[in-house]
Amino acid sequence: MSTLTAGYSDVRATNLSAVLGFLRANAPCSRAAIAGGTGLNKATITNIVGDLIDRRLIRETEQTQNRVGRPATLLELDGSAYAAIGMEISARGLTAIAYDAAGGQILRWHRSGPGRGAGPDKTLTATSALARRAMAAVEATGRQILGLTVGVPGLVDRDGTVVLAAGLGWRDYPLKPRLLDALSHPTFSVSVDNDANLSALAEYRYGPYAGTNNLIQISGDTGLGAGVIADGRPLQGNLGYVGEVGHLRVAPDGPVCGCGRRGCLEAVAGIPALVRRLHDDTDDLQLAVEQIVARASAGDSETVKALLETGSWLGQGVAMLANLLNPALIVLGGYYATLGEWLLPAVEKELQGQALAPQAGGCKVALSALGHDITAIGAVARSLDQLDAGRIPG
Amino acid sequence: MSTLTAGYSDVRATNLSAVLGFLRANAPCSRAAIAGGTGLNKATITNIVGDLIDRRLIRETEQTQNRVGRPATLLELDGSAYAAIGMEISARGLTAIAYDAAGGQILRWHRSGPGRGAGPDKTLTATSALARRAMAAVEATGRQILGLTVGVPGLVDRDGTVVLAAGLGWRDYPLKPRLLDALSHPTFSVSVDNDANLSALAEYRYGPYAGTNNLIQISGDTGLGAGVIADGRPLQGNLGYVGEVGHLRVAPDGPVCGCGRRGCLEAVAGIPALVRRLHDDTDDLQLAVEQIVARASAGDSETVKALLETGSWLGQGVAMLANLLNPALIVLGGYYATLGEWLLPAVEKELQGQALAPQAGGCKVALSALGHDITAIGAVARSLDQLDAGRIPG
Repeated sequence: MSTLTAGYSDVRATNLSAVLGFLRANAPCSRAAIAGGTGLNKATITNIVGDLIDRRLIRETEQTQNRVGRPATLLELDGSAYAAIGMEISARGLTAIAYDAAGGQILRWHRSGPGRGAGPDKTLTATSALARRAMAAVEATGRQILGLTVGVPGLVDRDGTVVLAAGLGWRDYPLKPRLLDALSHPTFSVSVDNDANLSALAEYRYGPYAGTNNLIQISGDTGLGAGVIADGRPLQGNLGYVGEVGHLRVAPDGPVCGCGRRGCLEAVAGIPALVRRLHDDTDDLQLAVEQIVARASAGDSETVKALLETGSWLGQGVAMLANLLNPALIVLGGYYATLGEWLLPAVEKELQGQALAPQAGGCKVALSALGHDITAIGAVARSLDQLDAGRIPG
Repeated sequence: MSTLTAGYSDVRATNLSAVLGFLRANAPCSRAAIAGGTGLNKATITNIVGDLIDRRLIRETEQTQNRVGRPATLLELDGSAYAAIGMEISARGLTAIAYDAAGGQILRWHRSGPGRGAGPDKTLTATSALARRAMAAVEATGRQILGLTVGVPGLVDRDGTVVLAAGLGWRDYPLKPRLLDALSHPTFSVSVDNDANLSALAEYRYGPYAGTNNLIQISGDTGLGAGVIADGRPLQGNLGYVGEVGHLRVAPDGPVCGCGRRGCLEAVAGIPALVRRLHDDTDDLQLAVEQIVARASAGDSETVKALLETGSWLGQGVAMLANLLNPALIVLGGYYATLGEWLLPAVEKELQGQALAPQAGGCKVALSALGHDITAIGAVARSLDQLDAGRIPG
């Protein structure tokens, strides 16, 4: 069957995922509410709900809805049959998270290292060991694993090769094939994606602004990257390299960037640049950021000035994204969220000053509430999204 | 019916448009070839082809295909029943183009003026007069009009209000409602869109690189704007303001832009900026560009140097688009195409130097072959696209 055409099985998959999607946003709710929300008729709902209950993707609750006549049984998502695993490899360490298909958390693990100096092979060994432990833990709950997605801070091509990850010191490393080997080619899907792309998906699925159809997530950590949701879908581009906002040239006479070019946004607005501006040590970013927060809270003028400068540069990047992509919302994540109190006024000022459209085309700026696990959360979402796309097992 | 769900009528619309789309790319071809290309079975093809012939959207040709056994009758698009009109309002004047549903040109008219000084009401009067003439000319051929789309060089909101069009001197002008009034509310759809968005659609439908799923069109005329096709769909953003590449700040110490800000890409890479750099008169851009071509062809060093400088700045904008959107192709249109011979080497150099991804993420740069009517061609495509989206009259 060509992807151009539709068959009746596609109609069924579309309607299954419509019912699942409605329940994800509105559960618990009655069959009548699903019919009202999706526009499907009562007979179709009865049929599809029965099918989803058989597949253990939804279930009837003990609750009923009070109303005139017979009480209506309410439905909710059933997380008992399936789960997905999301992981992140970063300069900070490794993270593994698993959610069941109802969005309930099964595990959330961190381990430090192996770090930048270790090289990709050592990191692969540690990653696959952690993945095996997570797989075993999920399987011990009796759930089938739908997929495992790994986020990395770098350019990832469609084959899962990490083409460039400056923060890890990697280049052209075939992470997905190596991981498949290390995991003995599991039956579920394994994928690798850019951390910022996954962070944007996490905001779109689980953040306070979930469902915002034109949303950009900018993360500040060892690097500066963006992920883009456009018209409700993650933007991928030709080879999957969307959102490299950190390497736009904004300061032609500025400092040399880690990528070797001069004047990149990352070199003036990145978290390591802020830390260096304050003559601190960039080896432990977390500690350095904590110290900056402490000094800024105490009103230290040099610190506040450096944050204002960082915010102005970051605002210039935000304005560029607003001019090119006209998002409704730009979410600042990673250490930008930690430092948001001091950065946000300058970011807003640059955005309003540099955006061509009145009121910056309706673009708001907000701080992420998803913390440092956001990439791993987005990685889980990527695998659970298979269900919403109608690729339902069984 | 909710847009979340699908019914059997959607399957039919999807399959009708799949057959139309296949014929648009491959006609003339046999029913067997359509079955092979779309994956639909023979009975479905027979049924859908019969329906499309009844609606006069396709027809059998006189030709047959030689093969063993009974010769196969070939099918082609039928342009005899429907047509669409595309128009452009620019500082150069007005353009109206009409194509029939098979992509055959019915008319292509230009008129100069009313120009920048005239104000929007006078331009509306001229535009609606030209539209009425085009509607009458199309109706005289016996075809039903599917839609009329107007492109303007500025920000257009979803209600068809031109929020800002610096090159025309317009601000907050409700063009679509006024045009509907002036045309006595025709039964077909009327829409207004940004010129660069429509130019990108024209490249995607009718350019030499038609079908490139991640494509950006950059036009140089009185302004500098971009339209974006991402994953095969025109990118719109929150309010429809995607692609304002001309107002990215690239030269913090550069000249003041027409928008009032300092250092915009348009102020250093725009065609009027090039003309000013050569101390020419910007009142007649076409004449000025012709003179630049003549002098550059004769090897005039000041002219060649100014073109190199323009190409370098334009390349910086191209690199920013490549870093953020990872297109497979960036097409330079308008006067950039006219001057492409001198601009392209500098553009390529900046792209390769400033893009983070190896080989600029696979991004090629090409010159548009669609000329100055590109916006009006894209406007026709927007209306004809209704057919491919399965919104088939009758």
